[in-house]
Amino acid sequence: MSDYDFESKVIDIPDYPEPGVIFKDITPLFQDPEAFTALVDDIAAHFAGKGITKVVGAEARGFFIGPPVAYKMGVGFIPARKPGKLPREVYSESYSLEYGSDELQIHKDALEPGDKVLVVDDLIATGGTSVALGRLVEKTGAEVVAFAFILELEFLDPRGIMARDFGDREIYTLVKVK
Amino acid sequence: MSDYDFESKVIDIPDYPEPGVIFKDITPLFQDPEAFTALVDDIAAHFAGKGITKVVGAEARGFFIGPPVAYKMGVGFIPARKPGKLPREVYSESYSLEYGSDELQIHKDALEPGDKVLVVDDLIATGGTSVALGRLVEKTGAEVVAFAFILELEFLDPRGIMARDFGDREIYTLVKVK
Repeated sequence: MSDYDFESKVIDIPDYPEPGVIFKDITPLFQDPEAFTALVDDIAAHFAGKGITKVVGAEARGFFIGPPVAYKMGVGFIPARKPGKLPREVYSESYSLEYGSDELQIHKDALEPGDKVLVVDDLIATGGTSVALGRLVEKTGAEVVAFAFILELEFLDPRGIMARDFGDREIYTLVKVK
Repeated sequence: MSDYDFESKVIDIPDYPEPGVIFKDITPLFQDPEAFTALVDDIAAHFAGKGITKVVGAEARGFFIGPPVAYKMGVGFIPARKPGKLPREVYSESYSLEYGSDELQIHKDALEPGDKVLVVDDLIATGGTSVALGRLVEKTGAEVVAFAFILELEFLDPRGIMARDFGDREIYTLVKVK
């Protein structure tokens, strides 16, 4: 792993988007060329030689990190989007949020059996979105090799929920928030 | 310019999102590693040596192309997002759509005087979003050097509206749709 201090570029925003929540603003990581380069190179290097053929990232902050990691690895990028945003036939997966639920979709022909997929997102919190992303990939017949995140909110125990569906898959995170 | 046939990887979706509209699906450009690499390398090479210090891209499809171009150029990436998505102080710019209007925001501290900005998006159609992006950049005191798009819908004459505010800036597009 890179010895870049990624955490120094994450800004805590208290009481956003609601009282009692500390929002982690990752935009400074992308604004700073040194941080951005270190971030992309770290994840790409970690998964080099593992046979990854596609990177999947979720709308919208997963699109900050998924495309440059895919570019660096020389593989394709597949967006997982909110309902109504992808124009062709899709697979859908719903998941629970703290209040209510949400849904992500991928094009049915975006992946195929034989593809080895790295799922990336900015953050893993409760793990609900990540499980949904993994299930979406598996619906295509492709294999989920691993997950990578910039931030891991350890105090929400995301590895607990991930273990049920993807316990044998690597979860690689750059900044762990206790 | 690259001799890669980018247009061959754009899928026309008739009557999407509504009857009479032909939606241009660019996701296959990102799914195919050869197309994706050619796309990013083409734009980055075109603007190499022009003193670009930041790339700005708009939610959400601008995030497919902005971050890898910024990564390749070794500069920072700044997201322009829909209202309520950026947690700190923002500049806002509203713009008209065919039906109704929309708004984009950037963090006030994302750019500063002296920054030389390349604005990227997937598509330039009527030009309204692009003008709003350019004005957002100028609100920070930074300079808009040029605009780059994958697709240009020439039949909507986007260069007409762009000429009013940014007539002396380059508009670089990979695929022109007549």
